[in-house]
Formats: sequence, structure tokens, C-alpha cells
Amino acid sequence: MTDRLRPFRQLARDLKVDAVALVPGPNFRRTFDKDFGSHERPLVVVISAEGAPAAIVPNLELRSFDLIGFEGEVFDWRDQDGYSDAFAALARALPLESLAVEGQVMRVFVHHALAEALPGLRIVDAEREISGLRLHKTPAEVAALEEAIRISEAALAETVEAVRVGMTEKQVERRLLTALYGHGAEDTAFSPIVAAGKNSARPHAHAGDYEIAAGDALLIDFGARWGGLCADITRTFFVGHADDEAQRVYRTVLDANRRGHEITRPGVTAHEIDDAVISVLEASPYAERIRTKTGHGLGRDVHEAPYIMRGNHTALEPGMVFTNEPGLYDITAFGVRIEDDILVTDDGCRSLTTYPKELTVIGC
Amino acid sequence: MTDRLRPFRQLARDLKVDAVALVPGPNFRRTFDKDFGSHERPLVVVISAEGAPAAIVPNLELRSFDLIGFEGEVFDWRDQDGYSDAFAALARALPLESLAVEGQVMRVFVHHALAEALPGLRIVDAEREISGLRLHKTPAEVAALEEAIRISEAALAETVEAVRVGMTEKQVERRLLTALYGHGAEDTAFSPIVAAGKNSARPHAHAGDYEIAAGDALLIDFGARWGGLCADITRTFFVGHADDEAQRVYRTVLDANRRGHEITRPGVTAHEIDDAVISVLEASPYAERIRTKTGHGLGRDVHEAPYIMRGNHTALEPGMVFTNEPGLYDITAFGVRIEDDILVTDDGCRSLTTYPKELTVIGC
Repeated sequence: MTDRLRPFRQLARDLKVDAVALVPGPNFRRTFDKDFGSHERPLVVVISAEGAPAAIVPNLELRSFDLIGFEGEVFDWRDQDGYSDAFAALARALPLESLAVEGQVMRVFVHHALAEALPGLRIVDAEREISGLRLHKTPAEVAALEEAIRISEAALAETVEAVRVGMTEKQVERRLLTALYGHGAEDTAFSPIVAAGKNSARPHAHAGDYEIAAGDALLIDFGARWGGLCADITRTFFVGHADDEAQRVYRTVLDANRRGHEITRPGVTAHEIDDAVISVLEASPYAERIRTKTGHGLGRDVHEAPYIMRGNHTALEPGMVFTNEPGLYDITAFGVRIEDDILVTDDGCRSLTTYPKELTVIGC
Repeated sequence: MTDRLRPFRQLARDLKVDAVALVPGPNFRRTFDKDFGSHERPLVVVISAEGAPAAIVPNLELRSFDLIGFEGEVFDWRDQDGYSDAFAALARALPLESLAVEGQVMRVFVHHALAEALPGLRIVDAEREISGLRLHKTPAEVAALEEAIRISEAALAETVEAVRVGMTEKQVERRLLTALYGHGAEDTAFSPIVAAGKNSARPHAHAGDYEIAAGDALLIDFGARWGGLCADITRTFFVGHADDEAQRVYRTVLDANRRGHEITRPGVTAHEIDDAVISVLEASPYAERIRTKTGHGLGRDVHEAPYIMRGNHTALEPGMVFTNEPGLYDITAFGVRIEDDILVTDDGCRSLTTYPKELTVIGC
């Protein structure tokens, strides 16, 4: 059996800290193949550079925690008693002076509980390094992501077929969600974006009661979660008809998206991809409609490294997965985004998303 | 127009801090009637005890943030540049010495960004006080919760009707999720628990490939989110038949659940309710199967104050909502939990959940 904690021990040594802490979230799930809701009850695993690990676990989760076959001592606590004693016991077992944590996952109340139990503790935000262990996807992870994408694309096809002028964004969203679970999604990867007309120009809009009108753009950004992996796909359709400007804007975004596929291969940096993609948009008459970078890594978390943006000089390597999602947004008119999920391969890249990208007029 | 920030200014004065910070989550949603995905991009609203508020907003969210009609200055930042400058600008505008934050919502990377921009800043975990502003539900919130419960109960009835021996937990979960969205859920309140046989004895189990056998307990704990409010309901069924011990355990839990309803009225403390409910279980032959407290508050968050547990001497007041969810869990056999959502009224309480609680044998 491989030692699943080894990479964290190594990371602690590399970061020159005494230990690494994991809380429930994508790194925890990948390591222990199990998820815990966190809510108001702290659950923390502490992996020392040297010696045995330890964990703080809510008593009512003990039976579930047993299933992960944890390698170290467990300090449990009950709601009635609170968790301070468990943190104090952990502090006696592991008198740490420094600790690397996942800054984008751990919440402040856990940070405070650690700081209180271990006065003087240096808490280092090592989100980048800890989550960096997930940069290269295993074949099993790629296969799960492909299944998540297959489910998502089947749900999208079913949803789009039903769209008609006069439907509300919420009605479309409900169809999408029902179709996602019908096709086998474990969960949604994130709350879907279903945005029509001017709403499509808000990159993170949510479905509302707006009634879709003829000529509207309809932007759908969503994804299933399957096997713990997250799909993230955007397609923008036009309902009833697409006017000339809509067609020009769409073609510009599609050109930028295609440029991203063309340029991706091992050794190219995230900066270079973003620069190539965004340059297509900048060279168009619609440069002032740019709002976002090209994309982000994708895996157990829907937003993770590598971030595909200018200034990030990380060189891509086989096994990395990221989104290629250029867009143009005009709040007075409409937005267009086309998003694929791309796997870096040994000699180039492969789009895991296969849903057609040609300009499509629906709802007729 | 009421001043929606007034309660936070008052809270800052009560806590003797310079300001209160809100990040996306239940308190943010209740205040601004809008949700933002947080992911890797900090979005923080800072409400000073005196003077104007300010906010840090990712540039790509600006168009959506505009919709909330924010009362103060906004410091935006772009992915390419990072967020340090925005925090520094906020620190110049509001040279705070102390700040109350939502410890169970704010993540460590935002805590660190604040601490870096404002050296010496005293960051106080005021989760209890900030979320305490949501303790009393408005009539509109109660109505939304009732709709979330109506959707949930309709979905449960539809799901239970389809259960048969040999189905897997995951198959039941998929039906439940499809039914939830079909009946109008905006989202799930949390990842559902569908646990059969011995799995039902893990309070927070998740659906797996276990095939339901004749005589199994089937515990379903789930809820729809609607209008931003979370339903949270558990029913435990028996599939095919229920043996004598199953019936005795079930009756014990139902007695405890009923005791919770009987005792609830304004002025009774959370401690007294938990004590009354758990005492029923403790007086039974199954006392060693107790794993959890009676319940928790419910609203925009699926777990919030008031926590119904011994030691919490908060007196209940009209408008508070909590779960009454006693359970008995034997990892070698099965678990039973019966959970209702209870509204404290002027002269007693009202169960918002109305799904039948009699022992029910399904799948025949």
C-alpha cells in the first residue's frame, strides 16, 4: 500500500514547517477518499514532518472517520463539551511551532482554535503548495472527469432542446438540474449559471425570473460532479435568431477559444496561453468587453491551479487540466463565453468537452 | 428604506470593535439579497461602527455587485494583479484596529490578507453575534422555509414509493435529487444522506453502492433550499418488514421526538429541550446508542443557532426555528433518526414538517 501521507510529510520538510493540516475539502477527499461536511464542527488532520499524525474529530463523525483507516491518534469531542479540550490534547501530543494550512479551505474559527491551543504557532498559508499536489491528474481522475463531462453534455443537449421564447431563466435551470441528476450526476460542481439577454453579460449571474426574448443570448455555465471530479462547461446560444453583431462577437470568442486549443502543449506557460487567447479578443473591435482571464485548473475543485492568466509563468505538464473560457461582456447588450475543459497530453492537448461550438440558434 | 447596515454598526459598538466584516455566505445573502461564489477570489464588505462602509470586490464581479446598491466605496482588483493592493487601499480608507468577522465563514486567506494590510489588527471571531442577527425569522423567511419543506416532502413521498429491495442507496439518492428539482427546489440544502442497513447508524453517512436488503432500515436526511432558506428533514423507514427490535427502537426515538414538540414554547431553554428529549432515550434500554444532541437552528444556513444541546441556556423566543432530531445508532445493526423543523410561536410551537412519523414499512 502506498503511503498516502508521504507527500504531505515531504511538503512540510520543503516548507520548513513542523506539519501540514488538512480540513475537509478537495485535498482531504483526494487523500482519504471520503468527504465530511464541516459546518460548525472542526475536523482537522495534522500530518507531522516526522512522527505520527493526529486528528481532531467530532464524536458523532467517529464511526465514519473509522472508515478512512487513519494512521494516527484521534482526539474526539462532543457537542456538549466543545472542542477546546481536543485542540489542547492535540497540542500536547504535537507541540508544533509552525503549521502549513489550506488558506482557501480552512476557516477562521479553526485557525483561532489552533492558535489558542498552540500559543506562538506560526500558521502559514500553503494553499498553493498543498493543492499543488493535485496538479497532475491520475488516469482514474481523468476518467472520472470524462464521465462528469459526458453527463453534463447529455443534460445540456436535453435542456437546450426544450428552450422556448418566454421561458424564464429559472425554468431552464430547473430542467438543467433535473437532467443532470437524471443522467447520473452525483452533485452539481457549482451552482449553475443560466443567464439570458443582458444578464449574460454578468460573468457569474444566477438564474432569475427574466423571460427569455427572441434574439437573446442564453449563456449556460454549469457542470456535474462525478467520482469527486468537477466538469465546468459553458456554451452560449441565441434564441430565435442571432443578429449580425451577435454573430461577429460570437465568432471572435470562438476564434479566441480555438487559439487556446492550438497553443496548448507541455512546456507552454499559463501566461503564454492567456496572452495568446486574450490577444485575439484585444485585436477585435470588442476589446473593451473583456472581463476575465482565460481559465483555471479543474479537478476535485472547480477552481484550482493552474490559473491560466498573464503573469503566471507555470509551465504546463502532461496530466494538467484547465478551462479555456474566453468571453466578451457588454452589460448594455449581451455576453458570450465558450468554455472547454482541456487535458494537457504528452504531445499537445485534448479537449475533454466535445459539445459543438458552432453558433447555434435554438428555441425555434 | 430601512438601513440594512444599522444592525452591524450597532453590533460593532456592542462588541467594542471598529467594524464588522461580511464575506459571501448566509449573513451576506440575508443582508444584500444576493449571493456570490467565493472560490479563490476574496470579496469582503467592511461595515464601520462610525462612517461609511467599504468593500473589496473582484473586478469580474463588479457588474453583479452593482446590483446590491452598496452604500460605500468599492476597491476592485483583477486576477492579473492580485488582491493585495485592494486590501491596502481599503486599509488606507479604513485604518481599523479591530474587526469582528464570521469565523465559520471567512477563510484563512482572507484573514491573512486583512492582517497583512492592517498590521496589528485585532481580528475577533464574532460568528455567534453576527449570525445571531438571524435568530428570529421574519414572516417572509418562515414562508420560504415552508415552501422548501413542501418541496422536500413531496420529493420524499415520490422517492419512497419507488424504493424496492435490491436498489442501491445511490439509486434512491438519484431519485430523491431528481424529485427535489422536479418539485421546484432551487438547490439542495446539503448533500443528502441516504443510508440503509448498518450505514444508517452513521449520523452523516453518504449514499453508496450498498444494495438495500429486506428488513433494512433506510434513513433519509435531506432538504431543499428555496428562497434562500433550508429545509432539513429526516425520516427512517423499514424496507420489506420491521423486526421487533426495530419497532422498539423506532418507538423510543419517536417518543423522544414527540417530547421535544411537547416541551417547546417561548422561555424554555435549548438546554431544557435537549435534556427532556435525550432523557427519553437515556431512560430506554438503548441509552448507549445515543450519538448526537437534539438539534440545531435552521434558516439560511442548515446548521445555525440556536444549538439545542445541554449547556446552552439560551431561552427560546417566538420566530426561532430549530430541528428536533433525536436518534439511536448501533453500528452493528441500524440507526433511527426522526427529524422535524420546529417554529417557536407566541404560545408554543408549530412543526413546519408534516410528513407522517408513524413506523412505515416500504418497498412491498
